[in-house]
Amino acid sequence: MPVSGKTAVLVAGSWGTAIASVLADNGRDVLLWSRNRDQVREINEEHCNSRFLPEVLLSSRIRATDSMEEAVKDAEAVVVVAPSSAMRDIAGQLKPHLSPDSLLIHATKGFEAGSLKRMSEVLAEELTSYDSNRLVVLSGPSHAEEVIRQCPTTVVVASLDKEAAEQAQDLLINSYFRVYTNPDVIGVEVGGALKNIIALGAGLSDGLDFGDNAKAALLTRGLAEIARLGTAMGASPLTFAGLAGIGDLVVTCTSRHSRNWRAGSMLAQGHSLEEVLTRMGMVVEGVKTTQAAYQLSRRYEISMPITEQLYHVLFDGKNPKTAVEHLMGRGPRHETEEIADDTQNGWLR
Amino acid sequence: MPVSGKTAVLVAGSWGTAIASVLADNGRDVLLWSRNRDQVREINEEHCNSRFLPEVLLSSRIRATDSMEEAVKDAEAVVVVAPSSAMRDIAGQLKPHLSPDSLLIHATKGFEAGSLKRMSEVLAEELTSYDSNRLVVLSGPSHAEEVIRQCPTTVVVASLDKEAAEQAQDLLINSYFRVYTNPDVIGVEVGGALKNIIALGAGLSDGLDFGDNAKAALLTRGLAEIARLGTAMGASPLTFAGLAGIGDLVVTCTSRHSRNWRAGSMLAQGHSLEEVLTRMGMVVEGVKTTQAAYQLSRRYEISMPITEQLYHVLFDGKNPKTAVEHLMGRGPRHETEEIADDTQNGWLR
Repeated sequence: MPVSGKTAVLVAGSWGTAIASVLADNGRDVLLWSRNRDQVREINEEHCNSRFLPEVLLSSRIRATDSMEEAVKDAEAVVVVAPSSAMRDIAGQLKPHLSPDSLLIHATKGFEAGSLKRMSEVLAEELTSYDSNRLVVLSGPSHAEEVIRQCPTTVVVASLDKEAAEQAQDLLINSYFRVYTNPDVIGVEVGGALKNIIALGAGLSDGLDFGDNAKAALLTRGLAEIARLGTAMGASPLTFAGLAGIGDLVVTCTSRHSRNWRAGSMLAQGHSLEEVLTRMGMVVEGVKTTQAAYQLSRRYEISMPITEQLYHVLFDGKNPKTAVEHLMGRGPRHETEEIADDTQNGWLR
Repeated sequence: MPVSGKTAVLVAGSWGTAIASVLADNGRDVLLWSRNRDQVREINEEHCNSRFLPEVLLSSRIRATDSMEEAVKDAEAVVVVAPSSAMRDIAGQLKPHLSPDSLLIHATKGFEAGSLKRMSEVLAEELTSYDSNRLVVLSGPSHAEEVIRQCPTTVVVASLDKEAAEQAQDLLINSYFRVYTNPDVIGVEVGGALKNIIALGAGLSDGLDFGDNAKAALLTRGLAEIARLGTAMGASPLTFAGLAGIGDLVVTCTSRHSRNWRAGSMLAQGHSLEEVLTRMGMVVEGVKTTQAAYQLSRRYEISMPITEQLYHVLFDGKNPKTAVEHLMGRGPRHETEEIADDTQNGWLR
């Protein structure tokens, strides 16, 4: 049964606004929830979200509200695109208004600090009267700035429930926004979160002018360590070869739109973490994700050399150049050792 | 037994000259073979290779010669970096002078036109008195322009013979050039060759201003089709998750140094294939590789949609925009279908 009618998007950041725009292009009426009354007024009166997507005129099908009840009540689908640090709080506000029949999709890339829980775990814990198997995760290589200009984009929707994934696909798919289904919720969430760490590292490497060869090596090793942690957490290794793995990693590490890349590049130029975060003025998910992944790598006893070096740069004041050199300068070894320890032995002799 | 002493590099293109420079930095005397007497004179008298690497001063340890005998005789290692179309001819010239004790490495990315053979197969056929199991393939994300400036770079050396791979590793490794061994000769050769097709496609997509989201999708789907053909040809799927797979693909698709990307970008701007090749003035391996891979996909009955669309653009005059739109606009499907047809089924219900 395809979803139709009213849809809600929480909150009105750049990615939330871009998803609202996809829904509006698909003929849906969208209610975009924001706590910020100035933003609500601007969206409703000027059809624009100047802080996050300047110079973009929004569809008149998108209306904003600061009332969670108004946004969510009777919505056939609710899309949550909150910063990871706000997810539990927003889920709590959502709970009294969410119908068990609504399709619930989240598109947040990160872990909860402290608990190290994935976003779908946080939602499941808070939304106790909602069937958590029907939760859908949206991820993939999708800069908001391009989606809102209708540039060709491909994403993945993952759910344990095939019907829920297909409902999300029907809701979102159109000629420029291609949506693929995938059963691997854990892999899609882990890939989306961890790529921000590698993007920080890529920004560091580029900020140090190490070149494209070094950045490609970092991406390759980065994907290997993402896949190592992800499979230890229960993901399918195949997911990391797809859009939510390599696809999202590539776009985040090589695009000028990436906040995490920009933050890494500023760190390489000698700015402190505090300075970088102040200057960016937006959430840089990779910073908190580095801390969470560092802790997860210890919990699961997984080798994550890039995450570890980044952690020391961000939180222990390690010199970025020394950190990247440490990553490049490890001794000779077999390439596949790090990718899959159980491979070997293809040698003829 | 580590290799030491005289080494030979054939031929003096940009990648051959960069490898010669790595060897010289490692204290080896290098003889760089070229048919072009002006180039030989320029390298010997001015220590520069202005056509391929302008503004670079070469080490005085690098000497050039147009005599194959002088280059190869008594060399402990010979590195062949010829265009794929010249490989068989150069192997024929090499044969009378190559010692069976020399280490033989090739770093050419492509297939032989017509026969569709990999470069190590061509070498094995021609060099009948050389133990073909000892052949080493060098590949990975390594733009010559960066290697010669000593930017941090990682590569893979693959051989069926572990000792030969380790000899190549000892020969080439240094602080900026990290060398990993891998037993998968087929995978390393196929990955290196096929990434040039995807780079052409990425150039097309960028030339049409489709954006970073679209290019990331193309890379992801591209890696999947490379891995499909490669595994059908006998490669290990893990190789495509490594430096000779995703690593080389990323650097070739996103770097301004890539010839194949530039050629694709010019095609998107409406230039004919003939114009593009004339303007480039260098071999664009991706063009011939597209033809070879198209034929291989039929031989092995493997779905390669990107290769197929590129083939029609290059050889049937298909409009590039239509081709890229065809790639983006396929119907809804499960993401993992294309990556591994034998996966499924992670759905809970």
